Amino acid sequence: MKIGKATVPQSAICAHNPDTIVVRGEDLCQDLIGQLGFGDYFYLLLTGKRPDAPASAVLNATLVAIAEHGLVPSVQAARMTLAAAPDALQGAVAAGILGCGSVILGASETAGRLFDEIHRASEQHGGDLKAAARTVVGEWRARGQAVPGYGHPVHKARDPRVSALFRVSKQAGGGQRYVEIAEAVEQVLPEVIGKDLRLNVSAAIPAVLLGVGFPLNALKGVPMLARCAGLIAHMSEELEQPIGFALSYQATLEQRYTGHVPAGFVPVQKID
Amino acid sequence: MKIGKATVPQSAICAHNPDTIVVRGEDLCQDLIGQLGFGDYFYLLLTGKRPDAPASAVLNATLVAIAEHGLVPSVQAARMTLAAAPDALQGAVAAGILGCGSVILGASETAGRLFDEIHRASEQHGGDLKAAARTVVGEWRARGQAVPGYGHPVHKARDPRVSALFRVSKQAGGGQRYVEIAEAVEQVLPEVIGKDLRLNVSAAIPAVLLGVGFPLNALKGVPMLARCAGLIAHMSEELEQPIGFALSYQATLEQRYTGHVPAGFVPVQKID
Amino acid sequence: MKIGKATVPQSAICAHNPDTIVVRGEDLCQDLIGQLGFGDYFYLLLTGKRPDAPASAVLNATLVAIAEHGLVPSVQAARMTLAAAPDALQGAVAAGILGCGSVILGASETAGRLFDEIHRASEQHGGDLKAAARTVVGEWRARGQAVPGYGHPVHKARDPRVSALFRVSKQAGGGQRYVEIAEAVEQVLPEVIGKDLRLNVSAAIPAVLLGVGFPLNALKGVPMLARCAGLIAHMSEELEQPIGFALSYQATLEQRYTGHVPAGFVPVQKID
Amino acid sequence: MKIGKATVPQSAICAHNPDTIVVRGEDLCQDLIGQLGFGDYFYLLLTGKRPDAPASAVLNATLVAIAEHGLVPSVQAARMTLAAAPDALQGAVAAGILGCGSVILGASETAGRLFDEIHRASEQHGGDLKAAARTVVGEWRARGQAVPGYGHPVHKARDPRVSALFRVSKQAGGGQRYVEIAEAVEQVLPEVIGKDLRLNVSAAIPAVLLGVGFPLNALKGVPMLARCAGLIAHMSEELEQPIGFALSYQATLEQRYTGHVPAGFVPVQKID
Repeated sequence: MKIGKATVPQSAICAHNPDTIVVRGEDLCQDLIGQLGFGDYFYLLLTGKRPDAPASAVLNATLVAIAEHGLVPSVQAARMTLAAAPDALQGAVAAGILGCGSVILGASETAGRLFDEIHRASEQHGGDLKAAARTVVGEWRARGQAVPGYGHPVHKARDPRVSALFRVSKQAGGGQRYVEIAEAVEQVLPEVIGKDLRLNVSAAIPAVLLGVGFPLNALKGVPMLARCAGLIAHMSEELEQPIGFALSYQATLEQRYTGHVPAGFVPVQKID
Repeated sequence: MKIGKATVPQSAICAHNPDTIVVRGEDLCQDLIGQLGFGDYFYLLLTGKRPDAPASAVLNATLVAIAEHGLVPSVQAARMTLAAAPDALQGAVAAGILGCGSVILGASETAGRLFDEIHRASEQHGGDLKAAARTVVGEWRARGQAVPGYGHPVHKARDPRVSALFRVSKQAGGGQRYVEIAEAVEQVLPEVIGKDLRLNVSAAIPAVLLGVGFPLNALKGVPMLARCAGLIAHMSEELEQPIGFALSYQATLEQRYTGHVPAGFVPVQKID
Repeated sequence: MKIGKATVPQSAICAHNPDTIVVRGEDLCQDLIGQLGFGDYFYLLLTGKRPDAPASAVLNATLVAIAEHGLVPSVQAARMTLAAAPDALQGAVAAGILGCGSVILGASETAGRLFDEIHRASEQHGGDLKAAARTVVGEWRARGQAVPGYGHPVHKARDPRVSALFRVSKQAGGGQRYVEIAEAVEQVLPEVIGKDLRLNVSAAIPAVLLGVGFPLNALKGVPMLARCAGLIAHMSEELEQPIGFALSYQATLEQRYTGHVPAGFVPVQKID
Repeated sequence: MKIGKATVPQSAICAHNPDTIVVRGEDLCQDLIGQLGFGDYFYLLLTGKRPDAPASAVLNATLVAIAEHGLVPSVQAARMTLAAAPDALQGAVAAGILGCGSVILGASETAGRLFDEIHRASEQHGGDLKAAARTVVGEWRARGQAVPGYGHPVHKARDPRVSALFRVSKQAGGGQRYVEIAEAVEQVLPEVIGKDLRLNVSAAIPAVLLGVGFPLNALKGVPMLARCAGLIAHMSEELEQPIGFALSYQATLEQRYTGHVPAGFVPVQKID
């Protein structure tokens, strides 16, 4: 069935013949395997060119920063899935990846779009980043759009990953423009939205990546690849020492049932 | 609902408090972010310890080797999924991950198990790896179990990624034991299964990884993380230049319909 | 980790004790198993009450209408996934479900929202549905929002499923209000968007379902459950007679490579 | 890339032209929409023929029986996923489907295979079903293979869904052969495996379905389609009243950390 206009598939990522595999214009076996770390190869795959030194340092740092934070919801979902289907590791990892959505890990990309909008608006404010941040955040707020990347359920003071990423960015010579924008947003938040929320890792990631030329449209992929690494580690532990069903058992200990019951029926759930 | 015996979830991967995040016993923000490449961090997450130099070189090389090979079936599935649901990048990546199964990328782990079995059997053969390979492959064959990691639809001579990985392993000082086993299997295949199939990347991966102490049980995660990187690159290209529906259009141009039709009905599909 | 405010899970769908399972206030084993068809049970699960006769007829008709349409992209993605991971049926079905997105099957819900908006706007137009349709469709168009549910790549005249669903709705005594709205949109499309697109199944589904009181917010679930049935049938056929890899082979026969190549490299792909 | 031998995709499920859609040899719009309930249509899709009265009654009863049992692990995984990615309903449903694995819902198919083996073995035991059951269950046990479909964490006496399904099967005139086999297994379990485990719904499903000619290879699809309906209902409730993060919060209240910590670090998790 013909959907849309394009009928001939094309791609610029990879070509091959029986002897050679070309990825992004380079010979995979001669020039890439053994020459490039995996983080740098991800940059090449995504953008079509090798990272320079600042981009390499910053991208690897962000991937390390966001890969793992314990038994977060997507890890729990993946561990429950593996407990139910232990033969299909790929299914459990996929279930975890499906939790990389707008509310949780998608914030990196949305924060990047916010910073980019402030960057572009700053000229109209004579280069005053705080003024630009005030305007743009106010507009997001007025549209009912959440401001992503600020506040964290555990790390109420600044998320410790923020300073680590900012430090790497500075030491590696990454551009500081979007770090300054991210901090400008942090400063204006109390007056614009009435809450003193501090930078979390999801804002720090675009702040440092945009400064080394990482494409805005590819931001979403960074937390996704990173979490994939964390998920695989959890799946390996789950296969050795399963807790998937223990998690689901604990999760419902306090469960309340709010529906109707037939006469005389006493559920094991609590009733509201 | 209590399923199984364990009721208290436990994990050794990550702990945190408001100021600090600990991963595998190390302070994420002080000791890991900016200190470790992403490939090495994956090793730490999975195994609980940092890789030594050979392990780092070999693991990164395998991740680079297997991340990308063009419009393979799982990439096509992911691109079709993104075309249908462009707002949910995580869904398309998950669909691609679901294609990392026993037939395609699972071969790395199965080949690792084969090599491990030959390694353990070799003592009974006075250390003769070819004899051990002959016996073990013969047993797999007799049980009707496919021998994984040999032969490739495109790379009929040795898959070029094999020599690249073996070269990295040697240069990095990785153990050569499982490389020798992998080559012993290649040598005995013609006589045992009657086909002259050469090593492909899925056999080379466990051959070099087991030689640097990478755990057998974690092998399956390597192609999965690697492909996740390739999938994200393809999704990024798909968002810029969509081919998901072009792929599905092409795929059915020659489709044949083999069922019944009501009288007078002429389908657009060809009929057998 | 505490995310958001709620800390106690509650649900009104199901309660149980060792002897009895209650679903939506009814005793599953006494009152539901053997008393209700599966389509009607889906209505009860979703809405909390049993369907009346028109709702039952219309819901079952829509589920039948949208369950299957051959080797569409999501079915191809699922068949490729099963070919790569034949042990994990659930993974292949999940891959297919992931293709029920905004572009393909999500149109049912979006069309329902469009019709609801026209319904609510009609009062301001003195009950003139065409005028209300003209205004609302014009506003969607002005916002750059696609008008869902009209036009089909194969069924250029009205999708034959439309008349079938409208016939069932009338015969079952379902409300015709949203059918009239759907037809009003069809009539105004040429003047508002300049294309003579006819109703397809994704518009007919909300047109008939909203007329029997089916909740707007639950519309998205109808094509998803329906396609799950079609996907399972395809997976069953795939296990008997695999075509997953044949589809991916065909899909790339005309593939073009648009990237760079190293000097002297001749890819098997065509080059642009 | 050509994987395997088949290069031309074929299917017997669906054909179409601009005016007509044919499913399993019947005209979808003339003969199926409005004529068949969704459960019966699933039978047609899967098997290629319409169910007779007993098959219809029994299949619908099994779909109703297994669709919903509250906040089971796969529902929790799906609700956590939706909480993290509320825009992608299909992703959350897919995450839930991924939990339909060998341990949880896959038992229906495995129990069906067990009953089929006993059926075929009974001739050698002069038709004595208990003797055949003793032998076959003993063989499964000796191979270390779990006996599926017996015992339930909540319903320690017979799962109430079992009698309901057996009642429907008898009333509808379904074959009782596999019901007798399922009961023979229940009777011999104490002596063969030393535990008095009673029939649960996963054994009752194949027992009644095989008796109406439902194909053994398609059994796995029944709980999967059924759970899809339950999952969609839970997702609808989750969108109205979210509990995904409350579940994940509760799940880790008792969490223990079993790894190392840097000197002086006090985690919020308990430490073993």
